[in-house]
Amino acid sequence: MQYKHTVKYYETDKMKITHHSNYIRWMEEARIYFLNEIGASYKKFEEMGILSPVVSVKCKYKKTTTFEDDVFIEVSVVKFNGIKLSLDYTMKNAAGEICATAASSHCFMREDGTIVNLKRDYKDIYDIIANFMS
Amino acid sequence: MQYKHTVKYYETDKMKITHHSNYIRWMEEARIYFLNEIGASYKKFEEMGILSPVVSVKCKYKKTTTFEDDVFIEVSVVKFNGIKLSLDYTMKNAAGEICATAASSHCFMREDGTIVNLKRDYKDIYDIIANFMS
Amino acid sequence: MQYKHTVKYYETDKMKITHHSNYIRWMEEARIYFLNEIGASYKKFEEMGILSPVVSVKCKYKKTTTFEDDVFIEVSVVKFNGIKLSLDYTMKNAAGEICATAASSHCFMREDGTIVNLKRDYKDIYDIIANFMS
Amino acid sequence: MQYKHTVKYYETDKMKITHHSNYIRWMEEARIYFLNEIGASYKKFEEMGILSPVVSVKCKYKKTTTFEDDVFIEVSVVKFNGIKLSLDYTMKNAAGEICATAASSHCFMREDGTIVNLKRDYKDIYDIIANFMS
Repeated sequence: MQYKHTVKYYETDKMKITHHSNYIRWMEEARIYFLNEIGASYKKFEEMGILSPVVSVKCKYKKTTTFEDDVFIEVSVVKFNGIKLSLDYTMKNAAGEICATAASSHCFMREDGTIVNLKRDYKDIYDIIANFMS
Repeated sequence: MQYKHTVKYYETDKMKITHHSNYIRWMEEARIYFLNEIGASYKKFEEMGILSPVVSVKCKYKKTTTFEDDVFIEVSVVKFNGIKLSLDYTMKNAAGEICATAASSHCFMREDGTIVNLKRDYKDIYDIIANFMS
Repeated sequence: MQYKHTVKYYETDKMKITHHSNYIRWMEEARIYFLNEIGASYKKFEEMGILSPVVSVKCKYKKTTTFEDDVFIEVSVVKFNGIKLSLDYTMKNAAGEICATAASSHCFMREDGTIVNLKRDYKDIYDIIANFMS
Repeated sequence: MQYKHTVKYYETDKMKITHHSNYIRWMEEARIYFLNEIGASYKKFEEMGILSPVVSVKCKYKKTTTFEDDVFIEVSVVKFNGIKLSLDYTMKNAAGEICATAASSHCFMREDGTIVNLKRDYKDIYDIIANFMS
């Protein structure tokens, strides 16, 4: 299950490469795609009144990318206890070389700011995600 | 009353100049600054439950700008009848040369999507803005 | 020939709709897609040392869009004389309703800043684009 | 030495808070400000033909921020050997509460892609930066 992002012109900077901040946005794109694919759509979360703020991100840049490059992103579930979700990302270019490795962690909240424990309160969604833990 | 924006590195693109889409964002920055300065703060609008969606924008690019350039933006009220607000923008570089001229129009809405007539419903705010019509 | 953009989470703003500046970026995405499709790839332009700065943009916002909405963009060549290229854009949602109409104009430059007349200097590229004039 | 960033409307997302990717951009703003202030301007680097790609970033989000919030960013030099520069960032809101802590690392390159050792090749710049190591 790979998400493909093609680098946009507006994502480049004056070094003629992709600006590093965009990888953080691609992580979001890949994460939303991944959750959609496994049946735990982020849009449905929001319709249920569950928000999922980002708790942390990190990204290591290995090879630059630029305009019109295809970047293939794989997402994997590293840890998930119903309260905190930890994801890993591997980004490769068309030649299969690693461009970046990244990680993010997330919690779940109701709109009033209280924490949601998916394992306790939404067991069906918890199971879907936990099932993909590597 | 001039708003100053210093071009950020992440606003440049691989042509080594500011990406054109950022000027649309600077218009928003300058508009919000202008409304704050004259006493019709956009944040207060939102606290009163009034949103102000953008109806149209246009921008003509005259001279390129790039990383660390200061851009000085003047906003003027061109038309305002309480329902639709039309603004003009002149953007100059540090040498006083025009980089871009732009225009935007806006309406006012309650959160339920109904149109607000500021002239009828919020006469004090209407007066503040109308007062700056050129 | 339609370009499809799916609205990203990071393209929304606190009004819960797509921030208006992103439509200007989608115009670029659609334009580059269109030029690729007709055989006048923008990437090839840059490899030939031809840049194509944006001279003007405008956009009228008709219906809001938000996270995960598909936006279908059609590009048409309105005017082209080899020196200045004028494009029109129609953006529709999945229901076929118009979200936005837009226009942009472009010139062509060598890296030293001198203007390129595609009709005179690159007749084959000129013909490809001119052929799509409506 | 604090860098102040006021959150822009276009930096918010549909959760009504600042989109997390913008903190990565503010790190760049703060870093460039810091280097300017201590006399090792990034613009001068580029004029000397030295690029400084980002090798890694990380950010932990502690408290949300939103439109018009002032964010105060402190940058500190954690490690620097002339080849790799490691920076830490503390971001606080107007109440002095920590919104985010972050880190980035950077290397230095000539335009042909070869690595620059600032300690060996540009001792004066090396000294300026190393001097701020905490």
